Amino acid sequence: MLKFISRLTLITGVFFLLGLMASCADKKDSEQIDSAQNQTESIAERPLALVIHGGAGTIKRENMTEEMEAAYRAKLQEALDAGYAVLETGGNSVEAVRSAINIMEDSPLFNAGKGAVFNSLGKHELDASIMEGQTLNAGAVAGVTKIKNPIDAAILVKDSTRHVMLSGTGAEEFVSQYGITMVETSYFDTEKRLEQLHRAQGKEKVVLDHSGVLDTTPIDDHKYGTVGCVALDKDGNLAAGTSTGGMTNKKFGRIGDSPIIGAGNYANNLTCGVSCTGTGEFFIRTLAAHEASNLMLYQEKTVDQALEEVIRQIQELGGDGGMIAMDKDGNVAWDFNTAGMYRAYRKSTGEMKIEIYEKTK
Amino acid sequence: MLKFISRLTLITGVFFLLGLMASCADKKDSEQIDSAQNQTESIAERPLALVIHGGAGTIKRENMTEEMEAAYRAKLQEALDAGYAVLETGGNSVEAVRSAINIMEDSPLFNAGKGAVFNSLGKHELDASIMEGQTLNAGAVAGVTKIKNPIDAAILVKDSTRHVMLSGTGAEEFVSQYGITMVETSYFDTEKRLEQLHRAQGKEKVVLDHSGVLDTTPIDDHKYGTVGCVALDKDGNLAAGTSTGGMTNKKFGRIGDSPIIGAGNYANNLTCGVSCTGTGEFFIRTLAAHEASNLMLYQEKTVDQALEEVIRQIQELGGDGGMIAMDKDGNVAWDFNTAGMYRAYRKSTGEMKIEIYEKTK
Repeated sequence: MLKFISRLTLITGVFFLLGLMASCADKKDSEQIDSAQNQTESIAERPLALVIHGGAGTIKRENMTEEMEAAYRAKLQEALDAGYAVLETGGNSVEAVRSAINIMEDSPLFNAGKGAVFNSLGKHELDASIMEGQTLNAGAVAGVTKIKNPIDAAILVKDSTRHVMLSGTGAEEFVSQYGITMVETSYFDTEKRLEQLHRAQGKEKVVLDHSGVLDTTPIDDHKYGTVGCVALDKDGNLAAGTSTGGMTNKKFGRIGDSPIIGAGNYANNLTCGVSCTGTGEFFIRTLAAHEASNLMLYQEKTVDQALEEVIRQIQELGGDGGMIAMDKDGNVAWDFNTAGMYRAYRKSTGEMKIEIYEKTK
Repeated sequence: MLKFISRLTLITGVFFLLGLMASCADKKDSEQIDSAQNQTESIAERPLALVIHGGAGTIKRENMTEEMEAAYRAKLQEALDAGYAVLETGGNSVEAVRSAINIMEDSPLFNAGKGAVFNSLGKHELDASIMEGQTLNAGAVAGVTKIKNPIDAAILVKDSTRHVMLSGTGAEEFVSQYGITMVETSYFDTEKRLEQLHRAQGKEKVVLDHSGVLDTTPIDDHKYGTVGCVALDKDGNLAAGTSTGGMTNKKFGRIGDSPIIGAGNYANNLTCGVSCTGTGEFFIRTLAAHEASNLMLYQEKTVDQALEEVIRQIQELGGDGGMIAMDKDGNVAWDFNTAGMYRAYRKSTGEMKIEIYEKTK
């Protein structure tokens, strides 16, 4: 009997061990399959995303006609789709940013490229900047007057020089050697912006580009403008770009935040990409775009929390404007303390949003 | 007996309570006295401190004559004393920074003001910036050619405009209205810098200002220059200033880090004041000065640790140069990954140091 029990134990033990081995093998196989599936899924599901803005300011429903709103929405959609198409066809985030911004630069609706505001001399001085999140490579041009698409010049400076920032006629001389489209400064003229200049000069006021309430705009207090884009590509690389026509009636070669890396524009794969618009001086003093990134890096803020905190810092100093940002996982954020901001995003999850007026939850 | 004990207890209790009250009153008095003493002491002992740099580069003992070294040491001492005298007589940190930098701008030994390097057109383009730690107010000029002391222009922009950064002829037009000393661009010419330009043009190289080893300087790889100062005044306010003549044989209106708030210059009473010198592009991409401040604010680094970490970030990207900084308690730090950096500090504790070559502990 004892022998029988002993044999039974042995047999049971062997079966148990065999079962255990089989179970382990199964587990290993299934782990391998899981891992392979995850990898396939993570490539397939690696998020693509693009967010744009077309400037912040006193943009209110009551000052907007249905036609104007439709025109803005259509152009934001066009820019969004152009940038997203680059991402969807495997292009990189810098090219996506370029495509989206080019559409807005070429449209007279925004204060960048065609439709840029006039400076005090009746000319246009444009600024732009680009930054890559993977390498921290960056390029910028400031105070250029003859470059059709300043964002293209910024990308050229990033790729073809060891410099970050070129300015004025020197920048133009450099980029003209590389087949960048140059135009007469009159190309940027639009009737609407000329009227704004005349009104501003009449009042000796420096006005914002999207203001519908010129009369209440204090001198020099509002320096909106700017279009911008942040994109995340299939390789997980972020890029941020910003382009602007500056301020109406601008004087003295003023440089705002748009061409300044860390102020109006920043990208870092460790954290986020950011593009700003608003009273540029406050974005310079707070290093708004770099501050948002550091709040994520060193304070473990989400991209939403980071923008909220930076807008709070800007407001505390007396400034206003807006920011768009995207983290390395494609989470989009925007925030502003103005009445409105032209803004839109599109993601590979299928989500898409175009907004103009007050923030909604 | 019980009655006696009870009375004794009562009496003891009363004495105990009286003693306790007296003790408390004593403590309160002595606390008040302590507090008053502390206040007197803290005003009397509130630290004054000033730190300056005159550029980093391949500054080596073997390339320096005794006379040259003595001249540099004497000029650094003069700048230190001029700035410190402002602090000692109750002046504010911005004025101390101005005084120290003016001395270096007026000396042909440094690449700022008189003695600025030549650009590719045989002209001089100067940049400067200033920031106040208490208010985060800032001012900067970029690419100016006729302003004798660019740091004065930066201070004027900070105080007399709502802008942070003015550039080129526009900046000159603005400051010339305010009695700032204007000079012909030939004022900045020096024989030594002209020789450097000719050698650089011969080699088509962009060279650093303090290089004694021109032949081994790779094209465009070195962009030193710059003088800077950080001061802490009797009110506990920090200020940082930076002034530069840019790069020899500089082209295309390149703007470096010196006039860019957060890159080459930054001050914040919560953390520190910083002035940088080196390959400006890397200081822009890392937002070197703002990064140092944020490492103190968000990572609880000391001012020494913060500079060490930022220089590490710059070196990781392939850049080099140096930084000076001072925290709100007057602790001075400097760090660099070049052979040397002209640098000096003076404090109300009596400490003073002037150094040129490799770092010493």
